[in-house]
Amino acid sequence: MTDPLTGKTVTLHDIDPSLVKITPNPNPGTPLPSEKLSFGKTFTDHMLVIPWTSTEGWAAPEIKPYGPLSLEPSSVVLHYANALFEGLKAYRSASGRITLFRPDMNMRRMNRTAERIALPTFDGQALTELIASLVRMDERWIPSEPGHSLYIRPTLIGTQNALGVGPSTSALLFVICSPVGPYYKGGFKPIALLATTKHVRAAPGGIGSYKLAANYAPGIIPQLEAAMEGYAQNLWLQGKEHFLTEVGTMNLFVVLRGEDGATELVTPPLDDVILPGVTRDSVLALARSHASTPITGLPPSKDFRVLERPISMPELVRASKESRLLEVFGAGTAAIVCPVDRIGYLGEDIHVPVGEKGMGPICEIMHREIVGRQTGVIPSDWAYVVKE
Amino acid sequence: MTDPLTGKTVTLHDIDPSLVKITPNPNPGTPLPSEKLSFGKTFTDHMLVIPWTSTEGWAAPEIKPYGPLSLEPSSVVLHYANALFEGLKAYRSASGRITLFRPDMNMRRMNRTAERIALPTFDGQALTELIASLVRMDERWIPSEPGHSLYIRPTLIGTQNALGVGPSTSALLFVICSPVGPYYKGGFKPIALLATTKHVRAAPGGIGSYKLAANYAPGIIPQLEAAMEGYAQNLWLQGKEHFLTEVGTMNLFVVLRGEDGATELVTPPLDDVILPGVTRDSVLALARSHASTPITGLPPSKDFRVLERPISMPELVRASKESRLLEVFGAGTAAIVCPVDRIGYLGEDIHVPVGEKGMGPICEIMHREIVGRQTGVIPSDWAYVVKE
Repeated sequence: MTDPLTGKTVTLHDIDPSLVKITPNPNPGTPLPSEKLSFGKTFTDHMLVIPWTSTEGWAAPEIKPYGPLSLEPSSVVLHYANALFEGLKAYRSASGRITLFRPDMNMRRMNRTAERIALPTFDGQALTELIASLVRMDERWIPSEPGHSLYIRPTLIGTQNALGVGPSTSALLFVICSPVGPYYKGGFKPIALLATTKHVRAAPGGIGSYKLAANYAPGIIPQLEAAMEGYAQNLWLQGKEHFLTEVGTMNLFVVLRGEDGATELVTPPLDDVILPGVTRDSVLALARSHASTPITGLPPSKDFRVLERPISMPELVRASKESRLLEVFGAGTAAIVCPVDRIGYLGEDIHVPVGEKGMGPICEIMHREIVGRQTGVIPSDWAYVVKE
Repeated sequence: MTDPLTGKTVTLHDIDPSLVKITPNPNPGTPLPSEKLSFGKTFTDHMLVIPWTSTEGWAAPEIKPYGPLSLEPSSVVLHYANALFEGLKAYRSASGRITLFRPDMNMRRMNRTAERIALPTFDGQALTELIASLVRMDERWIPSEPGHSLYIRPTLIGTQNALGVGPSTSALLFVICSPVGPYYKGGFKPIALLATTKHVRAAPGGIGSYKLAANYAPGIIPQLEAAMEGYAQNLWLQGKEHFLTEVGTMNLFVVLRGEDGATELVTPPLDDVILPGVTRDSVLALARSHASTPITGLPPSKDFRVLERPISMPELVRASKESRLLEVFGAGTAAIVCPVDRIGYLGEDIHVPVGEKGMGPICEIMHREIVGRQTGVIPSDWAYVVKE
């Protein structure tokens, strides 16, 4: 870019891991035992912060003690929701190896989301390296029990101290980490969904496909309303056709028996209203790989179809009545998969089979295959090695 | 509410102005001269802060030196956009009287918006009193030149330090103030709008009618895209009918000549996608009062209709072709009114008459009537007296 004052060409700095400044925490904390862990409530000793300005680009990264940020009350993030985040996890294998799961997907989505609200983009590989450094520093915070992990929360906020609505002239990227236990304590428990027609999560032409902060707070009241009616989460619908889109803050999968008897794994296609989830992509990739590299337990590949296509509530109701609705499950980083046993829709409940295990066979297989790759039981190039 | 630990009934405290703690700024600043004022860039010596917790309710308010907030990096506002704001102005009349303009409307909307994302509500009258105290303390920051005012920005954020998506268990309400000059320096300048079909600001079932932070950052890129095509702002459309909704961050008015020759002032009705603007309401109230209390310059009331009804781009195009499109203007607290002279739509420009003054007669009259009431030239019960 050209400096408007000097007329000289200025190079904006990208994130540079070699410049990282590390300040160890002089008062390291004590990780909670597994049974006291609760999602996103305790944090590790350190955080990564990288400031940005529109004139200089990204400043030197800093890993320093976890602690409060100082923000002017005029910071745009507090007024206009110039904010976005990612969620990924670090896993410790039985052998002690530490890996991240597909961080390249998070980095790509984070950059895509940043562009959508005019926040700065960056070299995703560089940020991944810095996250790996942070995880290594806080390695002792990664719980070692099965199903546990270290949840990593990269966040990017606009910090301009002026109230005009426009591209923020400064920003702060920070990464915090929180040890988490299994989403389901004591085995899988299927949830009930309320198919919402009163509220929409996202609309065509809107921001639903971006991991923007703005997509989350508006979902709190609809969730409470669903809970008051006895449902755990919302099943977000779209359009007068009542197309299924997402489940709470997860992507959605439906398993149907097709007209020809084949098993169909269906998820809505990526468009304006669907978040491109890493777990969603992993489920699709695994299911599609079955044709060339068979996965134990899945139907023979000639009887198994993977379909990204719109699916509506009337179709779901019809499939249920014809006993062709086999499974419904959510997919996301926090729960990996989340089986559904009941969907409230227009005053009636659609019951979804879950069997004795609390989840259908496809859901269970996908869980096994993904967890296997996250924990190193199944070798995979989805694992990014933080420490051998 | 019942305390979950003790079983005792607990009363949550509302905002109580009598508890206010005042800490004067030991280093008061110097207000900028009028020509250096720029919207929302400089702030007064003090700010009002009122913390809230779900167990205690609102704590004692504090007026203290303007300065940074300390927020944990896990504060939900930075991740999920649990944030909302209001905008109102304090005006100094020729006689030195200081008033706010219809603060009751802002308080009502702020409470309604807070409920939408499960942030705490409060006694609007109490907050208005505290804002008045803040304005009195920073009185010297209210510019005295015509068209100037003190912009007041109440903001409410969720401050819970845990990453679960749910009702925030703590919050912070703060109010900051910024001296502002006239929106249009050197007379009115009409703007060009790009009627957008690519992006939507809001959709039925969504959050467009709430003054949530989440509605603002997503508008930045569409605005930049409009600017690259030579338009100042977006004209946000809705539905396949291309109904007009809002202009940038303002409400929208259209003036038409009706089939019978009468003048029609049209604005979209309040629904899911329209923000209930204070200026919008003021324009409507004034226009409707014309029947009983004639306003100089408006057509005779028998030839003047005020209509809250949907209006679409095809209707606008048709009215333009039939020379029945008389005026288009935006209405909001920052600009009061904002005349429009051109609307880009599906690759063509619709030209809107603005005359020599840069704004049509209805727009000009509304500006005169509202400014008159804001500055005390026209007596009005819309003025809330901060200081006689």
